[in-house]
Amino acid sequence: MLRIVALAHDGTLHKDISLDDLSGNKYRWYWVDFENPTQNESALLSTFFHFHPLAIEDCLLYIQRPKLDHYEDYTFFVFHALNPETSVVKEIDCFLGKNFIVTFHFESLMYLDKVNKKIESGALNTPLLIFHAILDEAVDLYFPIIYSMEDRLNDAEDNTKGLSTTALMDEVFDIRSDLLRLRRTIYPMRDLVYRIINSSRIPDFQEYHGYFSDIYDHLLRLSEIVEDSRELTADIRDSYISLNAFHGNQIMIKLTILSTIFLPLTFIVGVYGMNFVHMPELKWKYGYLFVWIIMLTIGIGIPLYFKKKGWFNDKIE
Amino acid sequence: MLRIVALAHDGTLHKDISLDDLSGNKYRWYWVDFENPTQNESALLSTFFHFHPLAIEDCLLYIQRPKLDHYEDYTFFVFHALNPETSVVKEIDCFLGKNFIVTFHFESLMYLDKVNKKIESGALNTPLLIFHAILDEAVDLYFPIIYSMEDRLNDAEDNTKGLSTTALMDEVFDIRSDLLRLRRTIYPMRDLVYRIINSSRIPDFQEYHGYFSDIYDHLLRLSEIVEDSRELTADIRDSYISLNAFHGNQIMIKLTILSTIFLPLTFIVGVYGMNFVHMPELKWKYGYLFVWIIMLTIGIGIPLYFKKKGWFNDKIE
Amino acid sequence: MLRIVALAHDGTLHKDISLDDLSGNKYRWYWVDFENPTQNESALLSTFFHFHPLAIEDCLLYIQRPKLDHYEDYTFFVFHALNPETSVVKEIDCFLGKNFIVTFHFESLMYLDKVNKKIESGALNTPLLIFHAILDEAVDLYFPIIYSMEDRLNDAEDNTKGLSTTALMDEVFDIRSDLLRLRRTIYPMRDLVYRIINSSRIPDFQEYHGYFSDIYDHLLRLSEIVEDSRELTADIRDSYISLNAFHGNQIMIKLTILSTIFLPLTFIVGVYGMNFVHMPELKWKYGYLFVWIIMLTIGIGIPLYFKKKGWFNDKIE
Amino acid sequence: MLRIVALAHDGTLHKDISLDDLSGNKYRWYWVDFENPTQNESALLSTFFHFHPLAIEDCLLYIQRPKLDHYEDYTFFVFHALNPETSVVKEIDCFLGKNFIVTFHFESLMYLDKVNKKIESGALNTPLLIFHAILDEAVDLYFPIIYSMEDRLNDAEDNTKGLSTTALMDEVFDIRSDLLRLRRTIYPMRDLVYRIINSSRIPDFQEYHGYFSDIYDHLLRLSEIVEDSRELTADIRDSYISLNAFHGNQIMIKLTILSTIFLPLTFIVGVYGMNFVHMPELKWKYGYLFVWIIMLTIGIGIPLYFKKKGWFNDKIE
Amino acid sequence: MLRIVALAHDGTLHKDISLDDLSGNKYRWYWVDFENPTQNESALLSTFFHFHPLAIEDCLLYIQRPKLDHYEDYTFFVFHALNPETSVVKEIDCFLGKNFIVTFHFESLMYLDKVNKKIESGALNTPLLIFHAILDEAVDLYFPIIYSMEDRLNDAEDNTKGLSTTALMDEVFDIRSDLLRLRRTIYPMRDLVYRIINSSRIPDFQEYHGYFSDIYDHLLRLSEIVEDSRELTADIRDSYISLNAFHGNQIMIKLTILSTIFLPLTFIVGVYGMNFVHMPELKWKYGYLFVWIIMLTIGIGIPLYFKKKGWFNDKIE
Ligand SMILES: [Mg+2]
Ligand SMILES: [Mg+2]
Ligand SMILES: [Mg+2]
Ligand SMILES: [Mg+2]
Ligand SMILES: [Mg+2]
Ligand SMILES: [Mg+2]
Ligand SMILES: [Mg+2]
Ligand SMILES: [Mg+2]
Ligand SMILES: [Mg+2]
Ligand SMILES: [Mg+2]
Ligand SMILES: [Mg+2]
Ligand SMILES: [Mg+2]
Ligand SMILES: [Mg+2]
Ligand SMILES: [Mg+2]
Ligand SMILES: [Mg+2]
Ligand SMILES: [Mg+2]
Ligand SMILES: [Mg+2]
Ligand SMILES: [Mg+2]
Ligand SMILES: [Mg+2]
Ligand SMILES: [Mg+2]
Ligand SMILES: [Mg+2]
Ligand SMILES: [Mg+2]
Ligand SMILES: [Mg+2]
Ligand SMILES: [Mg+2]
Ligand SMILES: [Mg+2]
Ligand SMILES: [Mg+2]
Ligand SMILES: [Mg+2]
Ligand SMILES: [Mg+2]
Ligand SMILES: [Mg+2]
Ligand SMILES: [Mg+2]
Ligand SMILES: [Mg+2]
Repeated sequence: MLRIVALAHDGTLHKDISLDDLSGNKYRWYWVDFENPTQNESALLSTFFHFHPLAIEDCLLYIQRPKLDHYEDYTFFVFHALNPETSVVKEIDCFLGKNFIVTFHFESLMYLDKVNKKIESGALNTPLLIFHAILDEAVDLYFPIIYSMEDRLNDAEDNTKGLSTTALMDEVFDIRSDLLRLRRTIYPMRDLVYRIINSSRIPDFQEYHGYFSDIYDHLLRLSEIVEDSRELTADIRDSYISLNAFHGNQIMIKLTILSTIFLPLTFIVGVYGMNFVHMPELKWKYGYLFVWIIMLTIGIGIPLYFKKKGWFNDKIE
Repeated sequence: MLRIVALAHDGTLHKDISLDDLSGNKYRWYWVDFENPTQNESALLSTFFHFHPLAIEDCLLYIQRPKLDHYEDYTFFVFHALNPETSVVKEIDCFLGKNFIVTFHFESLMYLDKVNKKIESGALNTPLLIFHAILDEAVDLYFPIIYSMEDRLNDAEDNTKGLSTTALMDEVFDIRSDLLRLRRTIYPMRDLVYRIINSSRIPDFQEYHGYFSDIYDHLLRLSEIVEDSRELTADIRDSYISLNAFHGNQIMIKLTILSTIFLPLTFIVGVYGMNFVHMPELKWKYGYLFVWIIMLTIGIGIPLYFKKKGWFNDKIE
Repeated sequence: MLRIVALAHDGTLHKDISLDDLSGNKYRWYWVDFENPTQNESALLSTFFHFHPLAIEDCLLYIQRPKLDHYEDYTFFVFHALNPETSVVKEIDCFLGKNFIVTFHFESLMYLDKVNKKIESGALNTPLLIFHAILDEAVDLYFPIIYSMEDRLNDAEDNTKGLSTTALMDEVFDIRSDLLRLRRTIYPMRDLVYRIINSSRIPDFQEYHGYFSDIYDHLLRLSEIVEDSRELTADIRDSYISLNAFHGNQIMIKLTILSTIFLPLTFIVGVYGMNFVHMPELKWKYGYLFVWIIMLTIGIGIPLYFKKKGWFNDKIE
Repeated sequence: MLRIVALAHDGTLHKDISLDDLSGNKYRWYWVDFENPTQNESALLSTFFHFHPLAIEDCLLYIQRPKLDHYEDYTFFVFHALNPETSVVKEIDCFLGKNFIVTFHFESLMYLDKVNKKIESGALNTPLLIFHAILDEAVDLYFPIIYSMEDRLNDAEDNTKGLSTTALMDEVFDIRSDLLRLRRTIYPMRDLVYRIINSSRIPDFQEYHGYFSDIYDHLLRLSEIVEDSRELTADIRDSYISLNAFHGNQIMIKLTILSTIFLPLTFIVGVYGMNFVHMPELKWKYGYLFVWIIMLTIGIGIPLYFKKKGWFNDKIE
Repeated sequence: MLRIVALAHDGTLHKDISLDDLSGNKYRWYWVDFENPTQNESALLSTFFHFHPLAIEDCLLYIQRPKLDHYEDYTFFVFHALNPETSVVKEIDCFLGKNFIVTFHFESLMYLDKVNKKIESGALNTPLLIFHAILDEAVDLYFPIIYSMEDRLNDAEDNTKGLSTTALMDEVFDIRSDLLRLRRTIYPMRDLVYRIINSSRIPDFQEYHGYFSDIYDHLLRLSEIVEDSRELTADIRDSYISLNAFHGNQIMIKLTILSTIFLPLTFIVGVYGMNFVHMPELKWKYGYLFVWIIMLTIGIGIPLYFKKKGWFNDKIE
């Protein structure tokens, strides 16, 4: 589907016009948006607009890295929007000329409606400003995604949801790999906007330098959050690993103390359970009492000994 | 609340004047401080000062990264103060022109009083020097925070507070994530001051180059402390993990030795506790003595054997 | 074997000609491909083409890093193709002059046939375009290899193949070392194409700048996938290690609880299995019942106590 | 305490002169050394020498990072000496002008005597050469410290001192944190000397370029040693952790085998220790022999079975 | 020992001449090689050649980093050869002038004979070419060392030598620290050759640019192998650690299952081994049979229960 908006020389805004109306010099500028185009529509990139084959190939093929290529009469951009629900990447391709902008994408992009409304309100009156608005909206939509990631991370840090350790480790691993995926969009977008800011070949750019710097600020902040969050996930994981290992040892200590107490006691009662005919102790009057005294000495003495050695301490010297 | 200080052309300092007095060319320079402004007051950024919408947006919205944007007649700065008690970030926005400085912040900042006193004493007699004083005080307040962090780290290194291992690991993890948070302020502040030093667009800057270099020195030192402290926390954690694992093994060795001694003994006394009618040993005169000799041999021989094999050694070969 | 293609001045394409035909100025350009050449054929690099000894040495010796060397009348390239089945590196050496291209390789390269067909179709009509086509095809063949690596990684991430843990860890380690091997080809290839793009010494290059940028885009994407995949393997491994350690502790807890229950019980029954003549309890009417009550109290009380202390919990506090 | 050395225009060296003698143009150059100055003496930096307040502040306050600041008539340096015994940092501040050098330090520095002797011998006849000598001696004193660190590291690597594992891990951790401390001096010193080498603002510098390059070589080497040593400590620690974990498992295997043998045996003897009235086996003539045969089969068979399964092997498959 | 080779103006090669013959302008160029020189011979660097004291100091003192210093009439190089057997570093110092080359080394260097033979054959007819040959041979000798390192690494990766785990971990640690040592030679050598390539101050260099690029290619490849090999050793170690931990857990599971089976059984037989006078079960006709049925139920039921819960599985969920 193609959507066309064009500004006539008399300053009026025209919609619902056809591609053919655009040829000739009738309009001050126009915006053509290819949304999920058919093969016939895609062919117009070449037959009507005469864009460079390499740029058209980048439009038609599988998801590209965000990038910028200068051609003689226009600049070609690839950038990434993110689906706010699934955080899946959506590629938007964009041809920006002095008096036109052409956008191309296979998935529908809600937020372009917001850009349309701004055009109708008269706030965006050059192709460069429309381009800026599209890029700006795309990057603004990264924030809810990255903030929800930070929320998940904060939940994980204090385990506010009371997850089991296995579930928590799973969640931390998930956050890490989601951050990795986001990074693959945010870093190249940041580098792209940096190149836009430092490019001298985009028409009328100097006037709007500050507007793109503003987007760059956002991407810089986003990439710092991604980087710091990945470090924090590593810290959470390492902290759990060391706590877990420590708990393991504490339990082992308890098991050892228990065994140390009962192994000799069980041996002693075993001794006097033997059936030798000649076992003098068995016939002693206070034999049984005597054995109990020995056993109580062991059963009380060993824990006291361990206590003195600091084994019940929850410290590592 | 707005606080206004202005230097008249005759060198006298005026306070408690209104914004309207500032228009016209009555004053050599003026400083307007917006502290926790109302919506009406905030609107003055646009209606009275005519600052750029992007800069005003940065003032009004959520915490920005420290940064610097050049506009035609002024430079816009965002920087971060830290609350010395909670080490929470407070954003300060600042417009610096040739003959004015406007500061904007939603939280009250004690230390601005110190700057005010310096102005009254005559030590700060240009907007650039006032700007320097504000930035300098903000960065100076980082030091008590980072020094208290270093103290906590030193306490953790030797566990001077006698914390349990779990509490200590928690503390190390806390320090790490506090350092991460501080880093997010200190690194961009460092980069900001670096840009200030290397900027040729701030009026009269060359004269005071050394004063900003001095702040840069501090930020460089702070970022080194942050980086080194994070490495040290990692070292402390790794060192505890390895000690803990080692202790775990030592305990396991003791448990194994104990089992190795008592398992066969308990088996032996079990044998002679059996009730078979035909068990010749039971009727031997020295059967019981004989079993004791075997059991003592095992009970003494096994520990000796382990000692010879070096299991009681606290070394890993 | 030598394969020669040459374009005559009249625009006709000649194949099956001999090297001697190439001297004189009969052809607009020619391509000589040395496939698995004999020693006599290799000698032609020096005797017929008079290439520089250092470049010839690089052709003849063991696999070189991808690289580019400028000589007076030609540029010498080494680049790497990958066998799509085994992902083993195949070196291709290439001399690119104003009106000739000479390729040299010891292994047969299927995809050169595709280049040949494009020449016949007239799509490639300069040595530079032939060179671009060879490089482009080589890099395109990296993708199936890297995608299959990503598939293996995804399989490993969720263990979709139901491998045993040992087999899975082996697979993760294998993927890591395969990625390391791929990186050794992809990074220098990326740097090579970067140098090609920024070189001012390759004839007629400016015209085709965009075509090499396109290859560079691919290599940039490939190197990002390699880097991210290596991080992901590290994450998978770390995640398994921490899960494994946690499971180990859970099992240890169960063992400890079990021992805690049965060690005292076994001791008690041992006590009343002793054969002392004077053991009053044995003769009590309800002695046996009494012992059972004690034992049931222990056997039920201890698990309840542990439950209250949260040991059955699968969380680390 | 102030120590003054000055070279008169007639080439004679004067000591024990007062500050007042230095004003006027009596001397070709002079060196004033403030060693642990009183407040009155420190005030001379401002009242007599008129140095910049920022530089004076750096002199008087807490330890600064090594650095260099250019002022109109002199360059101000901060650098670090290390106490060879304690490896504690000592700050030296230095003002270098065309015909004077002023050094300032709160701790006594033995090695300045060596510089003094070189001046008396006539080897150092400009302020720049004196400055070089001071810097050179300071850096030379890093070497014994870093070499002793390398020695400690070598001792730790092979545990030549026969330390217990706990003590060894402590030592490795200590070396790591000492290296971290040294790095904080060596890296900024290296960067400082790099800036000196590349500075065009130090008078007469070009002539002595090679002399400062020589110091830079040393600092480069020192920083490589620090970096490599830190990697080596990480390797030693990781290697101990993995060895320790492996030994832990070996011990666990032995414990498991032992339990596997004796648990069933103890069960069997328990069975025939039961007091049921109707237990036919107890009355069999060869019952006891039969039980022994079963028990020997288990006691010998299980170890053989484990041996066949490779559990006694000290390898991980 | 000094070895002198000189080319007379008539193109004849002279050996066995004395240093004094070199003064005057008798020879087109000469090469003086100091092999393990006496103190008297070393003094000639200063008295005969008048080299700079800093360069001479570098010759005489302890092993330097590879480096390059430009002096007025010559360039001074330090580079590292490696003993192919022990891979110990041997320093070679080299002064390269327009018509002379002086080499200085304390250890004998076999491969200089190869350079000598090439001179005799007429292949090396300028000091720069001799210098290149010496450097080239030195770097070529790195390859057998690094290849043997790769072989050891491959052996370790699959444990082809069937080492015990302890021995294997030792070997991996050894390889890592050998790689660290090699890196200390290879990285600075690479940086040195990079500086040679980009230096405009070495006479006649432009002509032989390609020859030094060839050495740089080798050093680039070597440093990549070192870096990748270190990563691979870390991978091998991490992989062993995780396998070991997994095996430890598997063994623990087996031990737990075993205990879970026999602890209750042993308790039961203990119960009926008690000697209470009033124990009704003991007199039941089928009491013994009944107990066996209970015990078999437990002994078979518990393993079945664990099997159903997947404990015999060698997977971590
Ligand atoms: Mg990840
Ligand atoms: Mg990426
Ligand atoms: Mg990326
Ligand atoms: Mg950052
Ligand atoms: Mg950051
Ligand atoms: Mg971490
Ligand atoms: Mg952290
Ligand atoms: Mg930050
Ligand atoms: Mg940050
Ligand atoms: Mg630093
Ligand atoms: Mg540092
Ligand atoms: Mg560490
Ligand atoms: Mg690897
Ligand atoms: Mg590489
Ligand atoms: Mg590589
Ligand atoms: Mg990347
Ligand atoms: Mg990336
Ligand atoms: Mg890791
Ligand atoms: Mg990771
Ligand atoms: Mg450390
Ligand atoms: Mg430092
Ligand atoms: Mg530092
Ligand atoms: Mg280095
Ligand atoms: Mg290094
Ligand atoms: Mg390491
Ligand atoms: Mg190492
Ligand atoms: Mg190095
Ligand atoms: Mg090194
Ligand atoms: Mg590499
Ligand atoms: Mg690795
Ligand atoms: Mg690792």
